[in-house]
Amino acid sequence: MEAEIEFIPEGTVTSAKGFQAGAAFAGINKKAKYNLDLGILFSKAPSATVGLFTANKIKAAPVVLCQERLPSRSIKAVVVNSGCANASTGKQGLADATRMADLAAERLGVPPKNVLVASTGVIGQKLPMELLMAGIEQVTLSANGGQALARAMMTTDTASKEVAVRVRGGEFIVGGVAKGSGMIHPQLGTLLCFLTTDAAVDMDFLGMALKKAVDISFNMVSIDGDTSPNDTVLIMANGLGGNELIRQKTKAAAAFQQALNQVCTCLAKAIARDGEGASKLIEVAVSGASSKTSAKLAARTVVSSPLVKAAVHGSDPNWGRIIAALGRSGAEVVESKLNLSIGGIRLVEGGIALPFDKKKAVLALNDGEVFISINLNLGRAAATAWGCDLSSEYVTINSEYTT
Amino acid sequence: MEAEIEFIPEGTVTSAKGFQAGAAFAGINKKAKYNLDLGILFSKAPSATVGLFTANKIKAAPVVLCQERLPSRSIKAVVVNSGCANASTGKQGLADATRMADLAAERLGVPPKNVLVASTGVIGQKLPMELLMAGIEQVTLSANGGQALARAMMTTDTASKEVAVRVRGGEFIVGGVAKGSGMIHPQLGTLLCFLTTDAAVDMDFLGMALKKAVDISFNMVSIDGDTSPNDTVLIMANGLGGNELIRQKTKAAAAFQQALNQVCTCLAKAIARDGEGASKLIEVAVSGASSKTSAKLAARTVVSSPLVKAAVHGSDPNWGRIIAALGRSGAEVVESKLNLSIGGIRLVEGGIALPFDKKKAVLALNDGEVFISINLNLGRAAATAWGCDLSSEYVTINSEYTT
Repeated sequence: MEAEIEFIPEGTVTSAKGFQAGAAFAGINKKAKYNLDLGILFSKAPSATVGLFTANKIKAAPVVLCQERLPSRSIKAVVVNSGCANASTGKQGLADATRMADLAAERLGVPPKNVLVASTGVIGQKLPMELLMAGIEQVTLSANGGQALARAMMTTDTASKEVAVRVRGGEFIVGGVAKGSGMIHPQLGTLLCFLTTDAAVDMDFLGMALKKAVDISFNMVSIDGDTSPNDTVLIMANGLGGNELIRQKTKAAAAFQQALNQVCTCLAKAIARDGEGASKLIEVAVSGASSKTSAKLAARTVVSSPLVKAAVHGSDPNWGRIIAALGRSGAEVVESKLNLSIGGIRLVEGGIALPFDKKKAVLALNDGEVFISINLNLGRAAATAWGCDLSSEYVTINSEYTT
Repeated sequence: MEAEIEFIPEGTVTSAKGFQAGAAFAGINKKAKYNLDLGILFSKAPSATVGLFTANKIKAAPVVLCQERLPSRSIKAVVVNSGCANASTGKQGLADATRMADLAAERLGVPPKNVLVASTGVIGQKLPMELLMAGIEQVTLSANGGQALARAMMTTDTASKEVAVRVRGGEFIVGGVAKGSGMIHPQLGTLLCFLTTDAAVDMDFLGMALKKAVDISFNMVSIDGDTSPNDTVLIMANGLGGNELIRQKTKAAAAFQQALNQVCTCLAKAIARDGEGASKLIEVAVSGASSKTSAKLAARTVVSSPLVKAAVHGSDPNWGRIIAALGRSGAEVVESKLNLSIGGIRLVEGGIALPFDKKKAVLALNDGEVFISINLNLGRAAATAWGCDLSSEYVTINSEYTT
C-alpha cells in the first residue's frame, strides 16, 4: 500500500524539525552565482547519520574524513564549500579537512568528531584555510537557511536543487539539497547531497533505505560518464518529529522508504535537468528486460550515449543511435524483439523500423522533457535512467573551467 | 630484432601486388565529400582473408554476411558503400547485403561467395538497391584506385585514411584504408578498415596477427564511447609477392606482425586525429601498471573522458580531471604513487601537485598533438591509447546528422 506523501511548497533541507542552515561568501569560489560558497547544516539534536560515497579510487579528503566518522548516532553538523574540491591533495588535504571540521565545531560549540565536511570544485588545489576560517565565522544559522546552503554548494549548476516531502500518518518530513552539473555518472551520480529527516530511524534500516533510494535515483543519472572523487550522499535523522523509532519491515518503514525514494528521485532529476550545458531532461524507461541488471545497463547506456544526447539536442529522430547504444550496453538484447518509442511515437517494433511522421517526432524531441521508452520483450525487469542533451555549451563550460 | 620497415609514399590499400580498387557515386551518401559513395576492392588472386567485427549485439547485415563467409582462402573482392549502414534492417537487410555481393560478383565475374560487403552511414534505413546496382556498374578498377576507395568509405571523416609499408628482406607490402570519425570506442574502434598484403600468409597465423595488431591499435582508440554495429576489419593476403608462406614463430612472421602493427597503428591514429569535430590528437601513455589490463583500462578511460577531452580542447591544464578519470577507470591506482606529465611538463609526482609554469602547460596543450604521460609506479605493464578533443563542432555534427 502506498503511503500518502505530499510535497512541501518550497521544501528544503531545513524543512524537517530541528534542522538549521546558513551560508556565507568566503571567496573560495570566485564564480559563485549567488555570492555564497560556504555553508553549514546543523541539527539541534544529535542525528543518526549514514553516508554513501564515490566509487572512484581517488577519494577526496572530505570523503575520507566522512568515511572515518560514519556511521554515527551523534552527528550535529556538516560544513561544505564550493570552488575547491580538496581532492588529490594528499596528507595536507586530510589535515585541512579535519581543521575545517574543527573550525565549524568551534563556531557551533559541538565536539569536532560530530561534524562532517564536504567540498566541491577544482581538483588538485589546496583549501585556502584562511579564507575558510573567516568564512565560517560569518555563517548565521536559521530554520529557513536551506536555500542559502543549497546555493553555497553550487559550482556550474544554474539552479539550486531542494525538495522536501511530508508523510501523512507518520507525520514526519524528509528533505534534501543536492548539487550536480558535471562529472556525473552512475557510480553515485550526484557530487553532493544532504538529506534530513525529523523521523527517529533505526540506524541499520537508515543505511539500507539510503542505499535503496540512491540506487534508483542518483545511480541512474548520467551527465558525462565521469565520476567525481567527491561524490557524497548523507542522511541525518534527528528524531525530533516525535514518531516511534522506524525499524525495518514495519508499515512506517515502507512509508519512510517511499518518501526517501521520492526526495532522491526528485533531486536526481533536477541534477539531470541542470546538467552542464543542458537544455533538455532525457528520461529513458526500459521494460521487458531479462534481469534488473540488464534493465539498468540498457537505460544507463542509452541515456549516457554522446550520440543519443547530441541527437536529442538537435531534435533529430535518429533512433539508430539508441539501438546501437542498446547493443553495446552489455544488456541482453535480441534485435528482432525490440520495441522503441520517443515521446509516445512508435518508431521500432520487433526490431524493424516503422514509418513515422517525422514532424511529430521532431516536435516530441523539441520538448524540455524527452521520453524514450524501450521494451526489450525478454522478461519483466524494468529501470529508468535520467540524463540531459549534449550541447556546445557543455564544451564551452568545460574548456574554460580553471583558466 | 626489428625488421626494416619503410613507409611507402602515398601508400594505400592497392600498394601491395595484385590489388585493384575503384569507386563511383551511386547517390546513397548525399553528403559525400568527394562525390564517391561506392567502392570495390579487388584481388587478382584468391586471398586468404580473416576479419574482426563489432562487439555490439546489434550487428549490421554486412557484418553478419562477412562472419558467415570468413575465414576463407578464396576471397576476391569487397564492395562497400557509405550513406546507409544497412543496420537494424532485419531479414530484408541481410537479403540486400547478399544481393549487393551478388551484383559485385556479377560485375567482376567471380563467384558470389568470394565477395564480402561493408556499409557505413545512417542506422535503420534500407539500402537503396537500385542506386546501388547502377553504382556498381560504374566502378572501374585500377592498381591506383586505393584512394578513390578510401574516399568512397568516408561519412563525417574530413580526410581519407590510407597507408602502406614495405618490409625489407621479406620484400612484401602491407597496406590499408580505414574510415572513422564517430561512434568510435575501444571495442574495435574503427568502423571500417580493409588491409591488404601480397605476402603469402598461413591463415591461422593471419588471424592471430590481425587480432594482435588490432588490440594495440583500433582497440585503443576512442572518439565518443559509442560502438557501431558495423565495425569491420578485414585483411586479405593474396600471396602475389612471391615470398615463402609465412608461418607462426618464424623470423618472417615477426616482420609481418611488425609491419601490420605499424599499418594499424598509423590508421588508428589517423582515425583519432580526424574524430568528429576534433582539432587535436590526444595520446595517453600509461606505464608502471600492475597488469596489462590495468594499463589499458587507465589509458582508455583517460582518453575517453569528456571532461579531459573538453579541457584539452580549451588548452586548460586542469589535470585533476585526468586523476579523476584514472580513479574511476577500474585500473589499480594508488594515489600517493601517481606521476603525471603533459607534453613533458611534470604536473604531479607521488600523487602531489607540483608547481608548474602555467603558460608552458597551456602551450603544450595548444599543440595539434597532446601527449599525456602517466606512471602508476605499481608494476611494469604499459599501454597507449589515442583519442581527440571534444569541441562544439562534435555537437553540431551530431545534432544534425539525419535531419
